[in-house]
Amino acid sequence: MKDISNSRLTLLRKLNRRKYREQERLFVIEGARAVEQIIHNGKVEIAELFFDKSQNYWDQPEWDEKANYYPTSSIDRGYFQEISDTDSPQGVLALCRMPPESPVAELIEETGILLATDRIQDPGNLGTMIRTAVWFGASGLLSGKGTVDLFHPKVVRSTAGATGSLNHCNLELQNGLKEFENHGWQVLILDGGEGSRDIREIKTSEKTILLTGNEANGADPQLFSEHRIPLRIESAPGQKEVESLNAAIATAIALFAIRS
Amino acid sequence: MKDISNSRLTLLRKLNRRKYREQERLFVIEGARAVEQIIHNGKVEIAELFFDKSQNYWDQPEWDEKANYYPTSSIDRGYFQEISDTDSPQGVLALCRMPPESPVAELIEETGILLATDRIQDPGNLGTMIRTAVWFGASGLLSGKGTVDLFHPKVVRSTAGATGSLNHCNLELQNGLKEFENHGWQVLILDGGEGSRDIREIKTSEKTILLTGNEANGADPQLFSEHRIPLRIESAPGQKEVESLNAAIATAIALFAIRS
Repeated sequence: MKDISNSRLTLLRKLNRRKYREQERLFVIEGARAVEQIIHNGKVEIAELFFDKSQNYWDQPEWDEKANYYPTSSIDRGYFQEISDTDSPQGVLALCRMPPESPVAELIEETGILLATDRIQDPGNLGTMIRTAVWFGASGLLSGKGTVDLFHPKVVRSTAGATGSLNHCNLELQNGLKEFENHGWQVLILDGGEGSRDIREIKTSEKTILLTGNEANGADPQLFSEHRIPLRIESAPGQKEVESLNAAIATAIALFAIRS
Repeated sequence: MKDISNSRLTLLRKLNRRKYREQERLFVIEGARAVEQIIHNGKVEIAELFFDKSQNYWDQPEWDEKANYYPTSSIDRGYFQEISDTDSPQGVLALCRMPPESPVAELIEETGILLATDRIQDPGNLGTMIRTAVWFGASGLLSGKGTVDLFHPKVVRSTAGATGSLNHCNLELQNGLKEFENHGWQVLILDGGEGSRDIREIKTSEKTILLTGNEANGADPQLFSEHRIPLRIESAPGQKEVESLNAAIATAIALFAIRS
């Protein structure tokens, strides 16, 4: 197996930043299970595999096979740890081509459930939302302004191999959602405030957008309108110790409740 | 405000390790919102508050009030960052007394839902489970062997102020669950395997234990028995891209479904 070239090493280092990921249309998936899953799913094109030289992945037939199929390089342990986004890197990463955004016009013609995110900032939350949305068969993700990059290493890791399996587009929600509504989509907004409706009482249409807002502040007040339904997940009676559910947890419960 | 003493500084450093937390029966809660919440809930006794000297929390009346009520010390920025478990510390932490375990005999006499964890290893997952369990009014947590320490700084942070709000005990699940069953408790086990039942079809009793297993391997096969019900959260038909839901997500959906 050949050693990584200096230019590739520089590239991998740069891909820790969103700006370069978008410029190169490349991102990185780390960890044995995640890389296996992404290859198995076949939704993301693998440009190259990289192995930590000090770990002997290619002694295992399934990795040896992958190393023969894809362009593959080895990396010195020290460099690998430097590139890795994790504290204890597993020694394998895949350089992947970024799947293109879906055109809005295409997502509008879908049916089912679309997830929309307004300023979701925690990469673990966004990745978990994507994983859960794929599990429940959502039709796509409308990523609103201020939402963390879908191809951030931690987002990718939290999707547990689901990266690339969900249609997505970046959408300016303020006007963008109106366009969807003009085509028959119903918008539900997760919101613990007064006047919100218990999610167990909601009947959903076959074109439903579920909007989740920022972890600390919820959805932007400007996104509410009389046509949109604010939803709450009721806590136990009298419960006062926890202010709110985690954003990924609330989204998951809503996805489950909507399709149930 | 007095400077932190050397012995306190040494103590705070040591409390990053489980061994010392258990020896001292003390743990640390970090971040402005979490500390406010824990004070507001009143379920955990605060031993002392600490502020990063370079941030002026005591200029704010609400923090000045807390600093006058509790023993308080200031810490040099460098030391604070060293003690902190986060990359960008918010500059406030509370040294807290560890709430005692509930006796098993007491939890057995409860009704409602008890959460049980078998080798949950990710601190974020455990903390989120506690937060969600408190939200839905669970009666307690049975923490099985191999589960991460409830007072690990990252677990505490992920509970978002719910630490101390849930009765808990450490339980050897293999024999411990039998004792609960002898007192009328029904055990449900989250499990995606063949023969598991769709959670939407389950009728739960007023004494239900919901068991969640390890993130990668699920619950220990030895914990299954003919009296216990393996439960699955059904994915979309034909969905093959995601192997499983995140453990905290699955637990949350189950808690929601059971009480609905």
